[in-house]
Amino acid sequence: MLWPSRSRRSRPRSLGSERVAGLTRRRLLVSVGGAAGALALGGGGYALGREEGGGTDVVPFYGPRQAGIATPAQDRLVFGAFDVTAGSRDELRVLLQQWTAATALMTNGALTGPVSDQPDAPPADTGEALGLKPANLTVTFGLGPGFFDDRFGLAARRPASLRELAALPGDFLEPARSGGDLCVQACSDDPQIAFHAVRNLTRIGRGSAELRWLQLGFGRTSSTTSAQSTPRNLMGFKDGTNNIKSDDQAAMERSVWLGDDEPQAWLRGGTYLVARRIRMLIETWDRSSLTDQEHTFGRRKTSGAPLNGAHEHDTVDLVARQGDGTLVIPANAHIRLAGPGANDGRRILRRGYSYTDGIDPVTGQLDAGLFFICFQRDPHTQFAELQRRLGSRDALNEYIRHTSSAVFAVPPGANHGGYIGEGLI
Amino acid sequence: MLWPSRSRRSRPRSLGSERVAGLTRRRLLVSVGGAAGALALGGGGYALGREEGGGTDVVPFYGPRQAGIATPAQDRLVFGAFDVTAGSRDELRVLLQQWTAATALMTNGALTGPVSDQPDAPPADTGEALGLKPANLTVTFGLGPGFFDDRFGLAARRPASLRELAALPGDFLEPARSGGDLCVQACSDDPQIAFHAVRNLTRIGRGSAELRWLQLGFGRTSSTTSAQSTPRNLMGFKDGTNNIKSDDQAAMERSVWLGDDEPQAWLRGGTYLVARRIRMLIETWDRSSLTDQEHTFGRRKTSGAPLNGAHEHDTVDLVARQGDGTLVIPANAHIRLAGPGANDGRRILRRGYSYTDGIDPVTGQLDAGLFFICFQRDPHTQFAELQRRLGSRDALNEYIRHTSSAVFAVPPGANHGGYIGEGLI
Repeated sequence: MLWPSRSRRSRPRSLGSERVAGLTRRRLLVSVGGAAGALALGGGGYALGREEGGGTDVVPFYGPRQAGIATPAQDRLVFGAFDVTAGSRDELRVLLQQWTAATALMTNGALTGPVSDQPDAPPADTGEALGLKPANLTVTFGLGPGFFDDRFGLAARRPASLRELAALPGDFLEPARSGGDLCVQACSDDPQIAFHAVRNLTRIGRGSAELRWLQLGFGRTSSTTSAQSTPRNLMGFKDGTNNIKSDDQAAMERSVWLGDDEPQAWLRGGTYLVARRIRMLIETWDRSSLTDQEHTFGRRKTSGAPLNGAHEHDTVDLVARQGDGTLVIPANAHIRLAGPGANDGRRILRRGYSYTDGIDPVTGQLDAGLFFICFQRDPHTQFAELQRRLGSRDALNEYIRHTSSAVFAVPPGANHGGYIGEGLI
Repeated sequence: MLWPSRSRRSRPRSLGSERVAGLTRRRLLVSVGGAAGALALGGGGYALGREEGGGTDVVPFYGPRQAGIATPAQDRLVFGAFDVTAGSRDELRVLLQQWTAATALMTNGALTGPVSDQPDAPPADTGEALGLKPANLTVTFGLGPGFFDDRFGLAARRPASLRELAALPGDFLEPARSGGDLCVQACSDDPQIAFHAVRNLTRIGRGSAELRWLQLGFGRTSSTTSAQSTPRNLMGFKDGTNNIKSDDQAAMERSVWLGDDEPQAWLRGGTYLVARRIRMLIETWDRSSLTDQEHTFGRRKTSGAPLNGAHEHDTVDLVARQGDGTLVIPANAHIRLAGPGANDGRRILRRGYSYTDGIDPVTGQLDAGLFFICFQRDPHTQFAELQRRLGSRDALNEYIRHTSSAVFAVPPGANHGGYIGEGLI
């Protein structure tokens, strides 16, 4: 299914002079990008033309893989999905070039352009990151199915698996929060830095891409959590115990990275991103008993141990039975149904964040849960098949609703002087 | 104006058995609260019955003033406003007692009750804070005008200034995000801790108070910002340069704290909280020129210096003129109109946070800005009068909209064994 593009719905439009201003800023940005290596304005925080490698809180942007997938998860997320409004393939290429150049600057602690040099022009950076550190900012780009529709002559380059997911059990999808022709996943330990990144890419992209939806997320707080401990989700359970460890190269090659067998050469070294906004019915959950909660997950709430064990990382025993013959880990427990043991070894790399978006205006209940992001070689045979198998059997389904869905192909990283999507467009 | 109570609108209700469960939890909580000083389960993070003073990241809860006003601002905010649904004054008192006991535990790094002791009951804490540190959690309670309506016999105890603000220039108020009979301002350096606090107070209050609206905010990140530097708002400008410094006792007494001249004895030592959700028209702002932006604030964007100076803390000179006779700081600049020089010395203590709530579904534009919170002796002669004087003259008005408003009386702090609101109810 393709989501209706926001640009095809009625909305206020005001292009014209701004379009010109946008192009002016773009030229400016290109010149700034070229000069970035030569300038060194010092200081610990965001500044124009900061030299490369200026801090320990910088995650390298350039390289064979995009950052933000196998690199360590940061504390905060701002995720934006965009509708493409570019009028030509050339404009689309310029967009990706501009986004790449701006991201290389921002992830390195530099602004996207001068704030104060031209009094009569809008600043070439919005400025709220001035003086802050990049706080391990990563920006990860993905291309949605709509990128390959009939507008830009790219239909033949569309990878076979780049299509929206078929309807799944538990879907209560809201189109306005779903889909998108492009995505930008910005992660940082500082929410203002992640917001600054998506906002400035939105600004730079004006005329070529339009923000469709935006999701904020929070996760572990590095200052108050040890690096080793498994974070808890908003149901109060440790979440991700059996996730692929992103430094497990063999598992990453087997389940996440696309290799030479990918028919679309431009996507080799990349992966697929699935985003699902999973709302938790918090009030219902909070009224359920400890036993119900632990049987739902198949784990102890406090320790995170599987119900057959005593410690979080004890092996999950799916055949153990109580004295009365009942399964220790119930037949419908989430870890039984979601684990690789029940799924022919299917695994995914999860990298999601908790979210809270205030009160649902219809029910008056908290709108909070998990903004689930995962990476895999194939969204349909991995995430969607896992979800389908959970189907109506997973005890967790009583307490969650999937309210959005999106799928993106994630190209490989860019080399110095190159751009994300090079080789495709 | 009194906002319509959510409870007077149609909504799903499901009391009955949960009401009983709620009371059970309350009894449990009281016993836990009483035992908290005696238990010491060690560990660096949230646990049941943590001993007092267990870390440097604890802000004391008990004391003559509530924490979260003059105490240093943390990085993150979760602000909840509640409609009271209690059926009697006794229930209302129990609510405040329960909230006080739970908050004393949480701010000290303890859970609100046992997670794993009763398999057949819902856990007495939702658990997502287990293992985390309190990260300087403060929880500040306020009472709205509706607390003193005809339901609980408190009309005669209502302070004269506790009423919603009159209509103000720039108001585009949304009733569903405005007002409230009670408020809970939770601040912490860890968003999960702030969320955990409001969520558990909501859970504990079930049957007596119902969450009306919820707002998340983010501010400086202590790990990436020096304590001395003034944070930037989402317009990219330093914000708060001339704010009252909360350690300036004389200014706090003069402008913030209510003293012995307050007719309502229960409010002495307290203050008033005004909350205003100020949306910034980000896209319009980002298209305006640097000169426009700097003339709007009256400050330089990069340095934060007033237009008459070179450094952030240079004195604002409201009479300086250019060679051509025009004012250096324009007649409609925000710092001219908002500063105490133009307002007979009226000052307020600002303690707000930036927010981002995704995309406005109507316009497709970013819904982001400032969740403005201020404290003062009188909301009408201080905040509202300042805002009225800004009126239609403030150049900033072109770029902002006030989308919510709420006023609360903030009682003094609680003593050990006491509760917030003691002396009133």
